[in-house]
Amino acid sequence: MRYIKTFLFLLILFIIPVFLFFIISTSLKSDKANLDNTPTFAIAIHGGAGFMKKESLNDEKYKLYIDKLNQALSIGINILENNGKGLDAVEKVINFLENDSLFNAGKGAVFTHEGKNELDASIMDGKTLNAGAVAGVTKIKNPISAARKVMENSKHVLLSGDGANKFAEKQGLEIVDDSYFFTTEKYNRLQKILKKEQESEKHGTVGCVVLDKFGNLAAGTSTGGMTNKMYGRIGDSPIIGAGTYANNNTCAVSCTGHGEYFIRYAVAHDVSALMEYKNLSLEEATNLVINKKLVTAGGAGGLISVDKNGNISLQFNTTSMFRASYQSNGKRVVKIFKD
Amino acid sequence: MRYIKTFLFLLILFIIPVFLFFIISTSLKSDKANLDNTPTFAIAIHGGAGFMKKESLNDEKYKLYIDKLNQALSIGINILENNGKGLDAVEKVINFLENDSLFNAGKGAVFTHEGKNELDASIMDGKTLNAGAVAGVTKIKNPISAARKVMENSKHVLLSGDGANKFAEKQGLEIVDDSYFFTTEKYNRLQKILKKEQESEKHGTVGCVVLDKFGNLAAGTSTGGMTNKMYGRIGDSPIIGAGTYANNNTCAVSCTGHGEYFIRYAVAHDVSALMEYKNLSLEEATNLVINKKLVTAGGAGGLISVDKNGNISLQFNTTSMFRASYQSNGKRVVKIFKD
Repeated sequence: MRYIKTFLFLLILFIIPVFLFFIISTSLKSDKANLDNTPTFAIAIHGGAGFMKKESLNDEKYKLYIDKLNQALSIGINILENNGKGLDAVEKVINFLENDSLFNAGKGAVFTHEGKNELDASIMDGKTLNAGAVAGVTKIKNPISAARKVMENSKHVLLSGDGANKFAEKQGLEIVDDSYFFTTEKYNRLQKILKKEQESEKHGTVGCVVLDKFGNLAAGTSTGGMTNKMYGRIGDSPIIGAGTYANNNTCAVSCTGHGEYFIRYAVAHDVSALMEYKNLSLEEATNLVINKKLVTAGGAGGLISVDKNGNISLQFNTTSMFRASYQSNGKRVVKIFKD
Repeated sequence: MRYIKTFLFLLILFIIPVFLFFIISTSLKSDKANLDNTPTFAIAIHGGAGFMKKESLNDEKYKLYIDKLNQALSIGINILENNGKGLDAVEKVINFLENDSLFNAGKGAVFTHEGKNELDASIMDGKTLNAGAVAGVTKIKNPISAARKVMENSKHVLLSGDGANKFAEKQGLEIVDDSYFFTTEKYNRLQKILKKEQESEKHGTVGCVVLDKFGNLAAGTSTGGMTNKMYGRIGDSPIIGAGTYANNNTCAVSCTGHGEYFIRYAVAHDVSALMEYKNLSLEEATNLVINKKLVTAGGAGGLISVDKNGNISLQFNTTSMFRASYQSNGKRVVKIFKD
């Protein structure tokens, strides 16, 4: 009888750990399955948010924008698939958009009140929280590359005006004549606004956010500013925490819209803070900031974002945002309007 | 017997509400007592954080700094006691500091590499989240007043360079010749740095944060930048969310220190986010950001802050910060070193 009791006791002692092991290993397996389904890299890009109407865009122009967004996206995907760094993907995608006159950045920059082109850009590395930006530059072909040089080859974060032009030239970046930024369409837009035939267009920016295969997040934004802007106005695009932010603990964000509101609401940093301190998901955080806080304040615009798990959120409270995104597990989006 | 039961029943029915009322009113009274002890207004100011050593400051100079801080503080207290607005207190206190050559702001601005003076300032209204800022201005006697004009009389938040000079002039602000900002001490400092006889001094800013009698928070910061700065470098002082932030839901913050770190860590907004989203106290939030996050990153500096209940936190990870504060319930602090 005593032996039976001892036997039962040992049996129970044995069964409990085996049972626990079974439960734990099953739950680990289901975690692994989830992990296998998460993307190893992800990318999103934007070409500005605004109040474009579907009917104002003919089929040809619609196709042109969609093609350009697809091409830009493919440049980024190609870099990331081949184990490229997130920062390289951000810079090269934005270079492509800067070199195309369709978007308000680089070549396609709009004109200031005085008929000049003043460009802004910023970039941030989510791994180190290093950042670089340029504001009000006039001679740099690719402002996002100047922002990266500021981040990597200077002690500073933000350089402005002629000083920033000089720095970029010293760094060997391509310097162009004022005439490079002349495009008839953007020049005519200024003339119409000056004659009060058209309202000022506040929104127009390009941006890119990336999660690379090494788990690093990066974000970049580049803009030609506002048509008819005066007094050396600087918007949110070159402001780290407003127009651009990346942090490996949370997410990477690039904004587009009425810059003044994005500065006052520290939009890009706020999304990250809501995730880090309030445990909101990327979708919840971007929805709260863009569709509640900014809408209440009257701030029009949007943002693209990717979190450390490769989730993507493309959020805007306007009628349109040129946008594209891709996750390595297969989901590709290229859109202009709400649906 | 039935009547006795009914009587007892009614007695209990009566006793319970009376008992509850007693408990609730007692707890309300103790809350009221606490409220009575909270300040109706509070103010803090700074004149920059740095690595000044006690022995490098003789008695006379020490007394001079303490006197100036006391005078600045009294200007603010006087406005607030007489039911003045927080924004007025912030502007007038900073005007006083800008007009004194002791501090690196306004008249006492340091020199850029090219021997010029480029000034930055920003101001924010915690009630509306309106904000204004100027960067790289060269002709405005009081940059903080220009920042306020940007906030109140323009659609913009941040104006820069010559455009900002012009805007300020149009607004009727006092415009001065370059020579106004010449001070022998600051000019000699640049010469020593150029000859590599002295290390570059990164820290030097003035700021003011206020809770006024109407429960509104306001913050402002003004600086002459970094001695020997190049390439149109912009620091954190004109950046809303980095050097300056105010939000009636949380706190008002003005920063001083190595600006690049304050931009990358969105310091002023981060303090507010930690309070709003993580329920940290003002002291816990400022301590975490200044003494943990920035120290880990290697970012030297400090901040002054006041929360919506009139609590004040003066935090710095350097050896010195010129600072002063006052709460309407009597506590006055005027200090330079740790103790």
